[in-house]
Amino acid sequence: MGQSIFVPKEIDVTEGRVAVSPETVKRFVGLGFDVVVEKNAGEQSRIVDAEFEKAGAKIGKASDAGKADVVLKLRRPTPAEVKTYKKGALVLASMDPYGNEGDVAAMAAAGVTAFAMEFMPRITRAQSMDVLSSQANLAGYRAVIDAAAEYDRALPMMMTAAGTVPAAKVFVMGAGVAGLQAIATARRLGAVVTATDVRAAAGEQVQSLGAKFIMTEALKDASGEGGYARELTDEEKKAQAELVADHIAKQDIVVTTALIPGRPAPRLVSADMVKSMKPGSIIVDLAVERGGNVEGAKAGEVVTTANGVKIVGHLNVPGRVAASASLLYAKNLYTFLETMVDKEKKVLAVDMEDELVKATMLTHDGKVVHPNVVDTAKPA
Amino acid sequence: MGQSIFVPKEIDVTEGRVAVSPETVKRFVGLGFDVVVEKNAGEQSRIVDAEFEKAGAKIGKASDAGKADVVLKLRRPTPAEVKTYKKGALVLASMDPYGNEGDVAAMAAAGVTAFAMEFMPRITRAQSMDVLSSQANLAGYRAVIDAAAEYDRALPMMMTAAGTVPAAKVFVMGAGVAGLQAIATARRLGAVVTATDVRAAAGEQVQSLGAKFIMTEALKDASGEGGYARELTDEEKKAQAELVADHIAKQDIVVTTALIPGRPAPRLVSADMVKSMKPGSIIVDLAVERGGNVEGAKAGEVVTTANGVKIVGHLNVPGRVAASASLLYAKNLYTFLETMVDKEKKVLAVDMEDELVKATMLTHDGKVVHPNVVDTAKPA
Repeated sequence: MGQSIFVPKEIDVTEGRVAVSPETVKRFVGLGFDVVVEKNAGEQSRIVDAEFEKAGAKIGKASDAGKADVVLKLRRPTPAEVKTYKKGALVLASMDPYGNEGDVAAMAAAGVTAFAMEFMPRITRAQSMDVLSSQANLAGYRAVIDAAAEYDRALPMMMTAAGTVPAAKVFVMGAGVAGLQAIATARRLGAVVTATDVRAAAGEQVQSLGAKFIMTEALKDASGEGGYARELTDEEKKAQAELVADHIAKQDIVVTTALIPGRPAPRLVSADMVKSMKPGSIIVDLAVERGGNVEGAKAGEVVTTANGVKIVGHLNVPGRVAASASLLYAKNLYTFLETMVDKEKKVLAVDMEDELVKATMLTHDGKVVHPNVVDTAKPA
Repeated sequence: MGQSIFVPKEIDVTEGRVAVSPETVKRFVGLGFDVVVEKNAGEQSRIVDAEFEKAGAKIGKASDAGKADVVLKLRRPTPAEVKTYKKGALVLASMDPYGNEGDVAAMAAAGVTAFAMEFMPRITRAQSMDVLSSQANLAGYRAVIDAAAEYDRALPMMMTAAGTVPAAKVFVMGAGVAGLQAIATARRLGAVVTATDVRAAAGEQVQSLGAKFIMTEALKDASGEGGYARELTDEEKKAQAELVADHIAKQDIVVTTALIPGRPAPRLVSADMVKSMKPGSIIVDLAVERGGNVEGAKAGEVVTTANGVKIVGHLNVPGRVAASASLLYAKNLYTFLETMVDKEKKVLAVDMEDELVKATMLTHDGKVVHPNVVDTAKPA
C-alpha cells in the first residue's frame, strides 16, 4: 500500500526499549506497510539492525519520521520531535499526559493523531494491547531481582553443615500485575512472602501464589475502575497505616507497587516505618516515578537511610530488562495498530467509534480530544 | 579461664565479613573465653556492636590483638598485623598461602600458630568446619543473582497476553558446592539449566536438581582428591573444549566455578567461545580471583566484549552476601576451635596429633610446619 511506519531510536538516554521487534516488523510488512527503523534503535534491547533488515525493515535516520504515516514509540515525542512528523500521522506511545499538557498540546498543534497506549481499557479484547500490564509484569520480576542484588543475605532458606540461613521475609504492597509477579518471583527464590492490597479480590490471587494476604478489617474493599484501587478515605488510610507499621518492622525486603491512575502514587511507607526496619533491609519503590510510595525514596537513586535501610528507586524498571520488555511492548503496539488497518484495501482506517480508539486517542485533527486531558490551548 | 579471643575488623576494605557472630560469641563465652571484638567489625555484615555486647563480648580496638590467645579472622593477617599478635597465639583464617609464602614466613617469625581453614579435610567430622563449602554455597547463589541483575531479559518463562518470554538458558561449569547451588538458584528462577563437570559422580547430583548433565565421552572421570577434580590430560582438555564450544554458543548465562587446589584455575572458556555467544549474554566467572576460568575476565570488573557479552568478575562473591556468609563462617571457626579446648579445665589444648590440626596448621613455634607450603626462610 506504500503506507509506512517509522520507529525512532528513543531520545531519552535512559530508555533502552524499542517499539518494534523483528517479529512485529515481519507482520507489519505482511499487512502491507513499509517499515523504517532508525539506526541502532534496538541496540539496548539486543536487536541489531541486521535482524530488523532480515525481517523486512529498512534502516533509516531520525529525519525519516517526516515521511511516515505511523510512528511507533516508547515515550511521548518531545515538541521538537513531533514537529518533524507528518501532519495526520498516527503516533502510538506511552504518552504520560497528566502534568504534561503542554506537550500534548504540541502534538495537537503538529496535527498528529496521538494514542496514549496506557489508556487502553482493561477489557478482554484489549488484553494483548495492554502495555501497562506487559511492562508492569516485568517490573515486578525485576524489582525482586534488584532487591536480591542489594540484599546482603540469601533469599532462600539454606540448610548447611554450618547451620541454617533463614529465608528472607518479603512484603509486597499492592497486588496488581507488578505486585503479583513480584510475589511469584520472591516465592521462586524461596522467600517467605506476605502481601497486601486494598482490593479484597486480590487476596485469592495472592494466596494462589503461595503468599499470605494481610488486610485490615476496617478496609472491606477499595476496588476502583479498571482493576486499580480507588483512593482511600482518611479513616481507611489510618487503619492501613497501622497494619503496615506493625508488619513492616519484621520484614527484610519490601516491594511497593501502588498506583492510582492520573494521581500521585499513594504514600504507603512513612519515614517512621522505614526507621523501624532492621539495618540491611531493602525497600524497592516501583512507584518512584509517580512520586513514590515510600517516604525518602528518590527517583533514579539507591538511598541508604541513617538506620541502614536501602530504598531502591530505579527509573524505568521494565527498561532494566529491556530485551524482554521490548518484545512484549512491540507486540502490544502491533496488536492495536492491526485493528486500525483495513486488511482488504491494505490502508490505515481508524474507526473513530471503536471503544479502544475512543479510550486512547489524545489528539486528532489539530485538537486535544481526550476527555481526561485538559486542552491547554483552550481557556480552562 | 581468662583465655581470650580477639576478632579484628578486617583491614582489606573489600572484606565485609566478620569471623564471629553473636551466636558464636555466646558459645565462646560459655566455653570460658573472654571475647573482644574490634569496634564496627560486624558493620558490613549487619551485626552492630551492641549485639556482640549483648552476647557477652567486649568492644575493643585493633591493639587489643596483642593480648589475645586466639585471633579469629577472614583473611590472612599482614606481616604488620601479625607482629602485633602475642607469641604463641592461635590464628584461624583463610590463609591463602600459595604464592604468599613470605606472609606465611612472617607468621612463623611472629611465633603464632596459624591455621589455614581452607585446608580443612573434606571428611564427615569436619563438614561443619569447612569454610570453603559454606562460602562457596553462597557464592553459587550470588553468582546467579548477579547474572540475573546484569541480564537484560527475565529468567523464567513468562506466558503473557502479549506473547511468551522464553526461559533463559543457563550453563553451569563445575558442579561442586558453588556449581550445585548456582544450578539450584537458576532452577528456582525458572531457567533451563545444563551443567558439566569432569567428575562423573557430579552427574547424578546435577540431575537431582532438575538440570541436564553434559559430559564428553572422551572423559570418563577426572575425580581428584577431596572432592575436587584432578588436572586433565591434553587430550581430555581438547575433548572438553569441543563439547563446550558447541554448547556455549546457545546459552544466555554461563557460570564457571572450576578450581583445582593449589593451582591456577583451569581455563574453560576461550575468547573464541565468548565470541560465539549472542550479544546480551552473561558469563559469571567465580574463579576470577584464581586467574579465571574465562579468557578476558578481569578480577573486580564487569567487562563487556566487542560482541556485547558481559563477563562478570566480582571479587569476594561470598562477601556480596556478607550477612549470611559471616554467620556460617563464624560457625565454621567456632566448631574447629571448640575441638582445641579442654572443656574440663577450660583452657586451650591443641592436640598436635589430631588429623584436623595436622591438615590445617601452617606455622607453629617459629616455623612453617605445613608440608605443602614452602618455608622461604629455609634454602629450597
